Amino acid sequence: MNNFTFRNPTRIHFGKGQIARIREEIPADARVLITYGGGSIKKNGVLDQVHAALENITFFEFGGIEPNPHFETLMKAVELVKQEKISYLLAVGGGSVVDGTKFIAGAAFYDDDPVEMLYTRATKVTKALPIGCVLTLPATGSEMNGNAVITRWETKDKMGMFSELMRPTFSILDPETTYTLPARQTGNGVVDAIVHIVEQYMTYPVNAKVQDYYAESLLKVLMEEGPKALKDPTNYDVRANIMWAATQALNGTLSLGVPGDWSIHAIGHQITALYGLDHAQTLAIVLPAVWSYKKAQKKEKLLQYAHHVLGLTEQDDNMCATKAIEKTREFFEQMGVATRLSAYGLGEESIPAIVEKLRQHGRLKLGEHGDITPDDVAELLKLAL
Amino acid sequence: MNNFTFRNPTRIHFGKGQIARIREEIPADARVLITYGGGSIKKNGVLDQVHAALENITFFEFGGIEPNPHFETLMKAVELVKQEKISYLLAVGGGSVVDGTKFIAGAAFYDDDPVEMLYTRATKVTKALPIGCVLTLPATGSEMNGNAVITRWETKDKMGMFSELMRPTFSILDPETTYTLPARQTGNGVVDAIVHIVEQYMTYPVNAKVQDYYAESLLKVLMEEGPKALKDPTNYDVRANIMWAATQALNGTLSLGVPGDWSIHAIGHQITALYGLDHAQTLAIVLPAVWSYKKAQKKEKLLQYAHHVLGLTEQDDNMCATKAIEKTREFFEQMGVATRLSAYGLGEESIPAIVEKLRQHGRLKLGEHGDITPDDVAELLKLAL
Repeated sequence: MNNFTFRNPTRIHFGKGQIARIREEIPADARVLITYGGGSIKKNGVLDQVHAALENITFFEFGGIEPNPHFETLMKAVELVKQEKISYLLAVGGGSVVDGTKFIAGAAFYDDDPVEMLYTRATKVTKALPIGCVLTLPATGSEMNGNAVITRWETKDKMGMFSELMRPTFSILDPETTYTLPARQTGNGVVDAIVHIVEQYMTYPVNAKVQDYYAESLLKVLMEEGPKALKDPTNYDVRANIMWAATQALNGTLSLGVPGDWSIHAIGHQITALYGLDHAQTLAIVLPAVWSYKKAQKKEKLLQYAHHVLGLTEQDDNMCATKAIEKTREFFEQMGVATRLSAYGLGEESIPAIVEKLRQHGRLKLGEHGDITPDDVAELLKLAL
Repeated sequence: MNNFTFRNPTRIHFGKGQIARIREEIPADARVLITYGGGSIKKNGVLDQVHAALENITFFEFGGIEPNPHFETLMKAVELVKQEKISYLLAVGGGSVVDGTKFIAGAAFYDDDPVEMLYTRATKVTKALPIGCVLTLPATGSEMNGNAVITRWETKDKMGMFSELMRPTFSILDPETTYTLPARQTGNGVVDAIVHIVEQYMTYPVNAKVQDYYAESLLKVLMEEGPKALKDPTNYDVRANIMWAATQALNGTLSLGVPGDWSIHAIGHQITALYGLDHAQTLAIVLPAVWSYKKAQKKEKLLQYAHHVLGLTEQDDNMCATKAIEKTREFFEQMGVATRLSAYGLGEESIPAIVEKLRQHGRLKLGEHGDITPDDVAELLKLAL
């Protein structure tokens, strides 16, 4: 096990009716900006619950934050924050809204042009507004970490960033808010959470059993409960288990003292930025390709995953590893997320631009060994056609 | 899954050489009190590392904190804190030192007689000194929670308490500091951590899969690595896995949204207070007795544990549950911790005083159903003779 430092001070209120707790969290004299996305929270009653919790607190609203939130949109919110002297941000929605709100929180106090945050991974953020979060889509884990991924529409750059200062102070997770999710978002969310886990797990063994076994536990929960959520969307326990597993998948616990891959995300981000696919769709495409391309290097962990999570018993190691990759692909398809570029109308001609974007962003050495070059990406994406 | 609220802001520095990080954590102008136990930290080099990290910071020392730390001893430290205007406490040792230091932290600002903290579970603590921790014995989880158990020697009362204010600000976990632990303490630590896990797991199912599977993961880690630590005490990864598992066992993660038992601890505390057995020894005695006595009520989780953790395949449920209890007992014995009162020279005549202590402290309804009365305790302890 490698050395690590860990601290995660976000307070979680989990369960039915917890949205009312907003009033314990936000100071009575705050000036709140509620941020949200396409407006589903107006239809499913979530916004009404938020309004009720904010009784007697001054609030404003900023809607229209897109999936893969756009820098250009978020800067309008930053303007509103300054104009209305906002002192607290309340993100109500999924990971894109939470990520976008983190960007707003940091950009509000940024001395230079906040576009710089995208290209410096937010490392120069020195002050941020406090953030609360009402999560309505389990997937990104953004509700309990300091990560954000922001897309600059003008240049088609989708960039990750991190700051301790952008971590939500509190997050409310009410599984009932996920009952009305479209199947596509439910499926995407489960795939996203699974890929977060394996980016921190499917590398090489360093004898970190707590982290490994917990990763395997979360994978099992998501693989057992995911299909149930599609069939029985208002089953509370199913939704609750998925929601809590997705948070645990990326709250920092799994990455402690172990190597990380993250090549799947790095490649996937370029596909979303260039061709507009959902984030989880890109992950479902890239994961089997990366794992197949790096099967030899990842063999020990592929076999551990095959035995501990999938219950495979193949005697031949090579066959077992191959089957583990295929089973993972099948699971993504079962969740309604197609796993080949062709399923989204993309062919081999789509690959060079993806590779070029990686070069442009200096992502020249991906994966846990830093040995996946842009040339390798061009090769491995052929496995995803 | 039941509703829950969770926040754990303690910063963990884990790994080799991390003791040096103290100087990043403690303000340069602090007046530090180092608290410790019997003095093993002077022999194994830990105190030297602490001194080096505190270069140019004013510090004092208070040693002699006992296992099951005594109120009477700790009050002497409180006096020193006031006299020397201490502003930061640094606990260096195992759970008893950390628990004792938490008590000192709260008692330093307590308006009334701090003995009251024992009988009010520290609920009236409104201010506490900041605490840092260098853990040298993985067992209690005290390094990442707000719990403390303090013994009042005069009255033989061993009492648990909790305060958010008594949570360590930071804790340093260097597995190398555990290389020199006596086998008895290694064994005790593993048993203690296991019982923490099952107090939060071996109840009845509420379909909280994340918590259940994580509990099972941690049990597996401790059962796989525990015996290795006895055979190969300087194996870094073995020590690291045990250390991190023990912290996770009681940092609040496992108890979220699930019922708790805690009868094993409640009964065990009285045995320690009255007869001076090690904490883990009492747990190893009481656990098989409670599980056997409540086998019918706990059957579903006993079977889940039997299948998921122990890999038992008995067809007959009753036999499988019985075997799960026996295997657990065998594991404790394998760790060098005897599981019967008689092994410690205690017979049936020892039981009435234990039961009387529970009555005296108002612990009249123990267990996840609140249906273990003092009369039940008298009965079930006969199974532990």
